Amino acid sequence: MSELRKDPVIGRWVIIATERGKRPTDFVTVEQSGKKESCPFCGGNESMTPPEIYAVRKNDTLANTEGWEIRVVPNKFPALRVEGTVEREGMGMFDKMSGMGAHEIIIETPDHNDLLHNRSHKGIVNLLDTYQKRLVDLMRDHRLSFPTIFKNMGERAGASLSHPHSQIIATPIVPKRVREEINGSLDYYNYKVRCVFCDIIRDEKRFASRLIYENASFISLCPYASRFPFEIWLMPKRHMSGYQMITGQELKELADCLSVTMKRLAVALGAPQYNYILHTEPNKSSPRFSWPDIGEHYHWHFEIIPKLTRVAGFEWGTGFYINPTAPEDAAGFLREVEID
Amino acid sequence: MSELRKDPVIGRWVIIATERGKRPTDFVTVEQSGKKESCPFCGGNESMTPPEIYAVRKNDTLANTEGWEIRVVPNKFPALRVEGTVEREGMGMFDKMSGMGAHEIIIETPDHNDLLHNRSHKGIVNLLDTYQKRLVDLMRDHRLSFPTIFKNMGERAGASLSHPHSQIIATPIVPKRVREEINGSLDYYNYKVRCVFCDIIRDEKRFASRLIYENASFISLCPYASRFPFEIWLMPKRHMSGYQMITGQELKELADCLSVTMKRLAVALGAPQYNYILHTEPNKSSPRFSWPDIGEHYHWHFEIIPKLTRVAGFEWGTGFYINPTAPEDAAGFLREVEID
Repeated sequence: MSELRKDPVIGRWVIIATERGKRPTDFVTVEQSGKKESCPFCGGNESMTPPEIYAVRKNDTLANTEGWEIRVVPNKFPALRVEGTVEREGMGMFDKMSGMGAHEIIIETPDHNDLLHNRSHKGIVNLLDTYQKRLVDLMRDHRLSFPTIFKNMGERAGASLSHPHSQIIATPIVPKRVREEINGSLDYYNYKVRCVFCDIIRDEKRFASRLIYENASFISLCPYASRFPFEIWLMPKRHMSGYQMITGQELKELADCLSVTMKRLAVALGAPQYNYILHTEPNKSSPRFSWPDIGEHYHWHFEIIPKLTRVAGFEWGTGFYINPTAPEDAAGFLREVEID
Repeated sequence: MSELRKDPVIGRWVIIATERGKRPTDFVTVEQSGKKESCPFCGGNESMTPPEIYAVRKNDTLANTEGWEIRVVPNKFPALRVEGTVEREGMGMFDKMSGMGAHEIIIETPDHNDLLHNRSHKGIVNLLDTYQKRLVDLMRDHRLSFPTIFKNMGERAGASLSHPHSQIIATPIVPKRVREEINGSLDYYNYKVRCVFCDIIRDEKRFASRLIYENASFISLCPYASRFPFEIWLMPKRHMSGYQMITGQELKELADCLSVTMKRLAVALGAPQYNYILHTEPNKSSPRFSWPDIGEHYHWHFEIIPKLTRVAGFEWGTGFYINPTAPEDAAGFLREVEID
């Protein structure tokens, strides 16, 4: 069983995934397989994963057989398990919690080489719709306080398999970084009675220099204080605190905005490795939810981080990032590249 | 000129180092040179760096010639420059500051292959003494609020040159992560009237399972809520808020503790790449210093992070780390390995 442990100085929780129990000799990098036969996420290899939780399927195909377009399965090596209650305990000055939670894999496509920036509009709509469905389902469990939906693309981005996939980890606590962001937007709201993200969208449209792409409902841009070269935020223009609030029409426009943005990134930088992460409101039905006004001040969005530079000691030590590319320059390059 | 920019949501400052001005094509990884002829940090190549700020030298050798044991030079491509005043400005809702600060390189040895874990006791004492001297000198500049002393060892750790070197970046603001740590230790002090780090040392000695090494004045251990496999903290056993307070005798014992710890890490994991970072008190003479009781509640230490795993989307999105190796196991391996 994994364990959640709290740092006694800054209060940051960490998952100690003891089941993975890595020994010193286990830290050798393993070559990623691109072969269909050995890839557990490729169509036809359904028996290599745990049974599916959800799938988008062609008519008349059976669960855990071929014929799917998207498939959600439990992580075979989960950081957290959904069984059991959240037990809390102290040990001397140290605090811990049992490692309860959910850890799911969203296999985005049966085709090993169907990368996001080349995928069909329908394929991306299906993916974004699956995020919403799994989020709504997981948040019915009141023990879970926060769902993190994210994608690691490439080995430098932390992916251990190259087949296109996303992940959801739902945790019994609201993570530190999320809490900071929500508290930041609340402070701003208390001072200005406006949403800080809505204000960002307004100012970015006014300055225009950091914009990448925009359609009726969504906008993508390089944020003013980008930590990384070509860091991108993708936001709904309408104020919404949670990803579950998105409509069917908006899903299509989100797919368009994500697709154009990822295509531009792929052309400008030669299909770089990247992470993206959905930032959305915590589970309102969890007993530990503590922001009654969140609908007013928080605004969901995606953060996209291409892996172009290494994070070094200075950044780890201080939380202070050095970014060698001005976001205005990055956005300029991304606006200029030609895509199909 | 670089610029410091503030994230409007969570208040994190970022250095936009526009002088480095990287274009998309600049993000190709460059092979590191191990050749003495082309390495600007090797003995004999003094003319390849800016003029030295400080050096430990054999008698009768001249500045910027051979004969040095340690050499401190300005970074040729600094993230921040020491000229000018700290100008602050708003632009719409966004806040910025001119990128004033210091960025120095400490060349630890003239010998390209004299790695820290094999270095002589005297060489390590010289290094730790140089850290102290540069810190004291830089903190005489009241514009500088915080000195970050750190080492990137290896390409995965963010080093662009493989010759052993450390860096100092002194900034006009106290970085977010440092501020959190100090506020955390202050909260603990307000509640318990004790230093949280002194309490950690006491509890870790009692449990013993996470200890690596200890001498009269220093201790090294794998912290309870380690974010990374084989993460290590190295702390003085005597309560001290700032690294500048260390005595000459303590420097020798720190060198012993650092040397034994790095040797054990090198043997257990095959000389992994790593970062280490000195966490010490901010500049008390800076007008922005705001912790009058810091001498009571803060406790300087080194954090050592071997680069064994990739930080992935979940960690970036949440600040919540998944660590596949329990710190008790890591410390056990490090205690057991045999070193000379």
